[in-house]
Amino acid sequence: MTLPYLYHGQTSNWLTHTDHTLTLKLATEKSLPVKRVCVRHEPDNEEYLVDMVLDGESERLNYWRATISLNKDRPVSHYVFKLITEDKQFWLDAFGVHTRVPGRETHFKFNAQHQPPSWVSEQVFYQIFPDRFSNGKPEISVRDNEYRVSGGRKAVIAKQWGQPVDSENGGCEFYGGDLYGVEQQLDYLQELGVTALYLNPVFTAPSNHKYDTSDYLNIDPHLGTNEHFAALCDNLHQRDMKVMLDAVFNHTSTEHPWFNLQGLHTTLGAYQSESSPYRDYYFFNQGSQDYIGWKGIQSLPVLNFENQQVKDYIYQSEEAVIKHWLKPPYSIDGWRFDVIHMLGEGEGAKNNAHYVKAFRESAKQVNADCYVLGEHFFEASQWLQGDQEDGAMNYYGFAHPVRALLAKLDIAFDPIELSISEFLDWQAEARAKIPWANQLSQLNQLDSHDTARFLELVKHDPRLFKLAATLLFSYVGTPCIYYGTELGMLGSHDPDNRRCMPWHEVDSNAYLPFFQQLTQMRTQHPELQKGDYQLLYHDNESFIFSRQLGDKCSLCCFNLAEQPNQVTVEAWKLGLHHGQFGARFEAQDVTVVDGQLTLSIPAMSGEVFHFES
Amino acid sequence: MTLPYLYHGQTSNWLTHTDHTLTLKLATEKSLPVKRVCVRHEPDNEEYLVDMVLDGESERLNYWRATISLNKDRPVSHYVFKLITEDKQFWLDAFGVHTRVPGRETHFKFNAQHQPPSWVSEQVFYQIFPDRFSNGKPEISVRDNEYRVSGGRKAVIAKQWGQPVDSENGGCEFYGGDLYGVEQQLDYLQELGVTALYLNPVFTAPSNHKYDTSDYLNIDPHLGTNEHFAALCDNLHQRDMKVMLDAVFNHTSTEHPWFNLQGLHTTLGAYQSESSPYRDYYFFNQGSQDYIGWKGIQSLPVLNFENQQVKDYIYQSEEAVIKHWLKPPYSIDGWRFDVIHMLGEGEGAKNNAHYVKAFRESAKQVNADCYVLGEHFFEASQWLQGDQEDGAMNYYGFAHPVRALLAKLDIAFDPIELSISEFLDWQAEARAKIPWANQLSQLNQLDSHDTARFLELVKHDPRLFKLAATLLFSYVGTPCIYYGTELGMLGSHDPDNRRCMPWHEVDSNAYLPFFQQLTQMRTQHPELQKGDYQLLYHDNESFIFSRQLGDKCSLCCFNLAEQPNQVTVEAWKLGLHHGQFGARFEAQDVTVVDGQLTLSIPAMSGEVFHFES
Repeated sequence: MTLPYLYHGQTSNWLTHTDHTLTLKLATEKSLPVKRVCVRHEPDNEEYLVDMVLDGESERLNYWRATISLNKDRPVSHYVFKLITEDKQFWLDAFGVHTRVPGRETHFKFNAQHQPPSWVSEQVFYQIFPDRFSNGKPEISVRDNEYRVSGGRKAVIAKQWGQPVDSENGGCEFYGGDLYGVEQQLDYLQELGVTALYLNPVFTAPSNHKYDTSDYLNIDPHLGTNEHFAALCDNLHQRDMKVMLDAVFNHTSTEHPWFNLQGLHTTLGAYQSESSPYRDYYFFNQGSQDYIGWKGIQSLPVLNFENQQVKDYIYQSEEAVIKHWLKPPYSIDGWRFDVIHMLGEGEGAKNNAHYVKAFRESAKQVNADCYVLGEHFFEASQWLQGDQEDGAMNYYGFAHPVRALLAKLDIAFDPIELSISEFLDWQAEARAKIPWANQLSQLNQLDSHDTARFLELVKHDPRLFKLAATLLFSYVGTPCIYYGTELGMLGSHDPDNRRCMPWHEVDSNAYLPFFQQLTQMRTQHPELQKGDYQLLYHDNESFIFSRQLGDKCSLCCFNLAEQPNQVTVEAWKLGLHHGQFGARFEAQDVTVVDGQLTLSIPAMSGEVFHFES
Repeated sequence: MTLPYLYHGQTSNWLTHTDHTLTLKLATEKSLPVKRVCVRHEPDNEEYLVDMVLDGESERLNYWRATISLNKDRPVSHYVFKLITEDKQFWLDAFGVHTRVPGRETHFKFNAQHQPPSWVSEQVFYQIFPDRFSNGKPEISVRDNEYRVSGGRKAVIAKQWGQPVDSENGGCEFYGGDLYGVEQQLDYLQELGVTALYLNPVFTAPSNHKYDTSDYLNIDPHLGTNEHFAALCDNLHQRDMKVMLDAVFNHTSTEHPWFNLQGLHTTLGAYQSESSPYRDYYFFNQGSQDYIGWKGIQSLPVLNFENQQVKDYIYQSEEAVIKHWLKPPYSIDGWRFDVIHMLGEGEGAKNNAHYVKAFRESAKQVNADCYVLGEHFFEASQWLQGDQEDGAMNYYGFAHPVRALLAKLDIAFDPIELSISEFLDWQAEARAKIPWANQLSQLNQLDSHDTARFLELVKHDPRLFKLAATLLFSYVGTPCIYYGTELGMLGSHDPDNRRCMPWHEVDSNAYLPFFQQLTQMRTQHPELQKGDYQLLYHDNESFIFSRQLGDKCSLCCFNLAEQPNQVTVEAWKLGLHHGQFGARFEAQDVTVVDGQLTLSIPAMSGEVFHFES
C-alpha cells in the first residue's frame, strides 16, 4: 500500500509550547479523504487522543492543529499523530508514516525540562589533537627521554614535525604541538569559518593523547600553563568563539598521585598500599595489586564513583573539576565526556545514568548554557533523552552510516554494504529516537582522533570526500572538522589519523577553499543549523532532503552515481506556492511543473540549493 | 539485497547459562561464504565482539557457538550476532536479519535475575467475570434496590440470568453470578481443558465489575465469603489448577472507608474532612473536595502511593494486601494488576517503575513462583524487561494485531488495514523488545471484559473466529479464554461483552469441541507452550511459523484467502534431516523435496501439524 503524505516538523513553524502545553501542527495531502485527525499522547502512560482542527492550507496541503498538555510526571512528552479515513488509518511518528500505532521508541519526543543550549547548532566546531596541530612554543616541547611512560617501561620520544607516526611508539612519541600553537592559528581557523574548538585532553598526563590524566587541575606543562589557557579562552571569547574540553573521568593515569604506580609522588598511592587513602578510588581485588583497567588496559585504572571523595572531586563539591574549568578565568563553554557510558560503580557501568545526570547537573549549575557532550561509539539514544547529554559524538547516526555508505567499511574495518534506502533508514532511526533539540546538538564528524581519515577511507577519491563533507554541513546536527580534514589529510586508524598538521600545504591546498565555502554556507543559512529535515526523494543512487526554517529552505541533493542523475522531487511537500520555489530555480537548469521540481544532480556530488519563500 | 538465513532460538537448544555466562548457538546457511561470526554484547555499555566457533551441522545449516559473560551491572544482558563475508556483513537480532548493527531495542535480551515462573506458559487460562459466569448460591445474589451506587445516585438492579445487558445501567445491574457458581463449574472447565483461572475482581465493591474496591481484604458478600474462597482455592489446587486475582490498586471506590463519600462508614473519610487520617491517601486540591479520579472518573479516586500508609497497606508491610492473598489459606498463584502503568505519585504516573518493581518484590517475597501480570492496553515493553512484570495482558502484541488483521478494526473501533507482512512485523516487534521468558508469559486473549467479543468483531464468521482461536493456541504466550468465547458468545464493547454465560447452549454448542481440541493440542505439545518461534513462510494471504522445542516441532499454518493456498515452505530451516519431517507428512497431501515442503492450507483456516525428529 502506498502510504499517504503526512508531515510534522519540530521547529516553531510546527511546534510551540508554554510551561504546560504543546501546540502541534500537522500537514496532510489535500487529496487524502480524512475522517479524523488526532494527536496521541501519554500523560499518565495511557493513550489519550486529542482531535486536531483544520488550521490553514497551501496549494496541496492541509494543516491541522491541536494542543496537548505536557507530561507532569516526567520531562519527556511522547506524541504521535493518528489519521483515519473511511477504511484505513495512518500514523506519523518521528520515523515516518505507518499503518498502525508505531513502537514507542520512535514517537516524537519533547523534553520540556532539559533543552540543549541553542548556540550549539549554530557553530562550526574544529577538533584539535594538541600535540599534532601547531607548535607555538618549542621550548616547552617534550624532549627525548625526558620522562618515562607506561609504568616506567618506555621513555618518551621527541620527533620532528611531519615525521611519520609510528604505531609501535603508541602514546610516547611527541611532536611538540601546544596551546600557544592553537592560539597562533586562530586567524587561520576563523578564515576557515570555525567558530568553536573542541580540544582533545589538555590536562597533565604522560601520554601524547593525554587520556591518562595525572592532574585534572593543571594544563600539561608541555602544552601550556593555566594562565596561558585562561588567556586563550579569553582570546577565543573575544572572537565570539567557543571552547570545549575533553573530560576523562572514567579512569586516570597510573601516574596520578592517587594511584602513584611508579611512586613518583609523595602521596601514598592506591597501588602502593592497601592503607592508601585513595585505595577505594579504584577497584582493587582485596589484598592484591590487581585492579580494573579500562577495557583491561592496565595503564588506565578505572575510577570508582561510589567513593564519595571521587564524587566530590569530579562533580559534586563546589571546587569539583567539572565546575572548576567552567568558571572564570577559563569559562569554557562545554565538556566532551570521554567513554561516559562506561563509567559507574564496580565492573560494568552500574548506575551509569545516575552519574551522567549528576555530571550534567554539576556543569549546568555553573553555566546553564554549557554544552554537555558524550562520547559514544555506538547507539547513544538512552543518553540523549535530554536529562543526560545535550548531544553525543554522533558516530551512530552520522559517521558510521556515512562511512558504511561511501567507504563500505564499518568501524571495525569490516566490509559493509548499504543501499541508499538502508542508509537513510539508519539515519532516520537514529534521529527518531531522540528529542529534536538533541538531534540538533549531536556533534557530527567525518573522522576523529579515533577513526581513520575519511579521505583515506574512500581511497583518496576527492568526489566522495567532498560529497561527504557537503553532507556534514547540511545534515541535522552540528558539524565538526577534525584538524586537517579541511586539507584532505590522510591516515589510517589510530595513531596514523593523528599526523602533524601540514602547515606548508595550506596555501596551495585544493580542499581548503571548498571547506571555506561549506562553513560559510552553514553559517549563512540558519535552516542548515536548525531547520526541519524532510526526505523528499531517493532512488538507488541519489537522495534529496530539505532543511527548512521559517521562510528559508535548503534543498540538499546527493548523487553517488558515476553519471548525473535527473530526478523529480515532490517539492510541493515544502508547502510553498509554485512561484516561491519556481522563481529560485528558473534561472538554472531546473523545471517546476505542478509542484514537481525536476533537476539534475551531477555525478558523485553533493549540491545544496537555497531559496526563500 | 536478499538477506541470508541466520537463526537463533532462545530455548535450551540455543542458549544455556550459568550464574555468570551465557552460551549461545547460531544457525547459518552452509552456502553462505562466512569469514567470521561473532556475538556482540555490552558488558559495560561498550561493544565487545566474541568470536563464535563452528560446532555442528545439519543438512543445510552450520551451527556456531560462543560463550559470553552475563552483565554484572544490570539484570538484562543484550546481545546480537554479527556475520562477515568477503564484502558484506549481516546482523541477527530478535527481530530478524539486518545489513547493519540493529537498534538496541530489538537486541536479544536475557534477564538472568528475573525469570517468570515456568508454569505460566504451560497453562490454559480462563477469565471469569464473576457476576456473569454462574450463579451457585441465589440467596446471596444482589437484590433489586438493595443498596445505592455511584455516590448514592443509583439503586442497584437485579436481573434475570440471560436478560440483555443494558449499557444505561452501567455498573449497577446484577445477574447473580458468584464464586459458588465458579466452583460448581470446575468440571466443565477441566473438560474444556482449562488449567488456570483469572478472576475479575472479587473483593467487596459496589459495582458489578468490582473495579471500585471498598474492602481489599474481604470477598464481596454477593460473590461468597473468605472461607468459601479459601475452599475454592484449595479445590483448584487439588485439581492442579491455578488461580489469579485482579488487583485494583490504582484507585478505590468512593465507598471505601478511607474515602467514605456517602458517610456510610464510621471512619472519618478523606472526602468528608481535611482532617481525615486518610486525606493524603488520595489527591485532593487543598481545602476542597476536588480530587483526582482515574481518567477523570469521579467514582474512582486515585490512590497516592507517596503516602507511607498506602504503601504499607498495599504492598510493603507483612500484612499488605498483595501478600495477604498469596498466603494460606488462599495461596493464590498470581496477581493481575489493573492499569498498573498509570499508578504512581500525583498527576501522571510519577515513579511508576518504582512501584511496579515494589509490587513484584512484595509478591515474590511470599511466593517466588507467583505470576505477576500487568494490564496494559498499549505497548508494554518497558514493563516487561523482567524486573517489573512477568507478563502483560498482551493487547499490543497479540489481541490488537489479530483484531486488526481479521476484523479490520483497532481498539477504538477505527478502521485499520494491515497486510500479512505488516501484521507479522507488528507481532515480531512486540516479541523482539522483551526477553524470551517474558514473551512466553504474555497473556494472550482474543477478547476480554474490556473488548468486544471476537466472533462479533469478525461479523459472526466462524472461519475467521476459528482461525484466530487456532492462532491463540499456537502462538508465543499463554492462551486465555474469556468465559463463553469457547461457545462463540457474541457482544459488542463493554458492557455488551459481559453477557451471561449461556449454560443451556453448552451441550449443543458447535464451538466447544473445537476449543477442547485446541486446549488438548496446547497441553499435549510442549513446543506450543515453550518452543522457539520461527517464521517460515508468508505471502499476501498466508503465513506459516514453527514452534520448536527439543525434538518436537509444530508447524502452524494460516490462510486468510477464500481459496486453499498451496505453498512451499523452506522446512530445512528447522534443522531436521529429510527423513525426519518427511515421514510425518508423506501420508498426507504434502510433499518434501530437497528440504522444501509443499502443502496446501485450506481456505480461511488455521492448521497445526506436529512432528518429532
